Amino acid sequence: MNETIKHQLDHRTIRFFKEQPVEQSLLEQFWAVMNRTATSNGLQLASVIRITDKTLKKELSEICTQPYVANIPELYVFIVDTQRIRQIGKEKGYQGYSYRSMDFFTKGFTDAVLMAQNLTNAVESTGLGAVYLGSILNDIQATINLLQLPLYTFPVLGLGFGYPNDVPQLKPRMSMTFKIHENLYQEKHNYLSLLEEYDQEMTHYYDTRDKNRRVDTYTNQVLKFLENPITKREDIVNQIAAQGYDLKIKE
Amino acid sequence: MNETIKHQLDHRTIRFFKEQPVEQSLLEQFWAVMNRTATSNGLQLASVIRITDKTLKKELSEICTQPYVANIPELYVFIVDTQRIRQIGKEKGYQGYSYRSMDFFTKGFTDAVLMAQNLTNAVESTGLGAVYLGSILNDIQATINLLQLPLYTFPVLGLGFGYPNDVPQLKPRMSMTFKIHENLYQEKHNYLSLLEEYDQEMTHYYDTRDKNRRVDTYTNQVLKFLENPITKREDIVNQIAAQGYDLKIKE
Repeated sequence: MNETIKHQLDHRTIRFFKEQPVEQSLLEQFWAVMNRTATSNGLQLASVIRITDKTLKKELSEICTQPYVANIPELYVFIVDTQRIRQIGKEKGYQGYSYRSMDFFTKGFTDAVLMAQNLTNAVESTGLGAVYLGSILNDIQATINLLQLPLYTFPVLGLGFGYPNDVPQLKPRMSMTFKIHENLYQEKHNYLSLLEEYDQEMTHYYDTRDKNRRVDTYTNQVLKFLENPITKREDIVNQIAAQGYDLKIKE
Repeated sequence: MNETIKHQLDHRTIRFFKEQPVEQSLLEQFWAVMNRTATSNGLQLASVIRITDKTLKKELSEICTQPYVANIPELYVFIVDTQRIRQIGKEKGYQGYSYRSMDFFTKGFTDAVLMAQNLTNAVESTGLGAVYLGSILNDIQATINLLQLPLYTFPVLGLGFGYPNDVPQLKPRMSMTFKIHENLYQEKHNYLSLLEEYDQEMTHYYDTRDKNRRVDTYTNQVLKFLENPITKREDIVNQIAAQGYDLKIKE
């Protein structure tokens, strides 16, 4: 097994970092990796906001409702960016509106996530640690306002990284056999019994955000998420439209 | 610079593969990497369809309008999978509908892309090559029918990999400086002049799908994509609704 895969199998979320800044030489490697990431049709429809301002970090941590976010050395927000091709089209004399299409949005969203994971692999390969911040979508409008994201851009996910000051446990996963289907999707109807062992395993895992409390079983966690939806996060389609995209909704 | 990053900076799309199958021992490493990928709230809302059936590969290649897809040794389609948490909820006695929410959909979409890129990094680290297939979305309904994807699942992107039988050029990218913004998004209004050098560079690149023809400049490619939108791909939001998700569209 090679070093890349060893690091990948050792992935764990790091939320607490040393104050030590990440060296410029490493950052430049990471940025080059981000830029080399695969991109839909070569269009390069993703960008990234690197947050270095302490006040902005603090404000983002409030949107995320995660205080530790304010202290992350390198803090990035990946965005869909079709603003760029709109501008290029305009400069080329294009007068239509197809830059508003959900096809470009989808490509940009995919490009942004690919770039984030490629960065994460680079970061972790050097012994640094990273944390994804899906919670930037807790209040999409607030994130858009905070980073002054113009029309035809959209926040996708955050990523923080730096030198780890934390050694969390490896978080258990359900068996991959539940997630990989051969040729056709196979529905299952007895997950509670199939996941019994995994549920047990999960109760022996301690989350770094609350080291004194064992976590709940996976299936109980699922139930809690189902019972407590985050209403603002369910509003994402309207937020996409508000950023200028044409949903083309059929009646 | 470590080996992981060297491989990442050497990323190029491989479309043509040797017939040699990928060894089971490697596949098992790749599947373990996929399973270890970061996932929103630990919910694991993505799955993958591994297509081994030759007829299915052929049919998928037709949806992709890329004949080479029929001959890819390892062919995966990543999907949003909230069907699983719906079923778990049901078995736990949950009677609501929040599994239909666009929040879970978004998390699943993100999980699927993270998993795909993590797999790509593993694949490329071993000297194998990979190709992303965004083109599975050319006809979303056809992909759904082909893989018999049930309600509460959705195709995100395809990935093929194997032993490379092709040595493509490294595809030029615009400078990362256009894509990385510090603290606030900075709009630009003179892309044609800013991208002049990149445009030139692009015309010296040869696509492996058509080795006898230089590709067009980046800004001309953008214009062509804007002028020739793929209507069926713009319909993605309706397709998401048709798979059971509640868009919560406001009038």
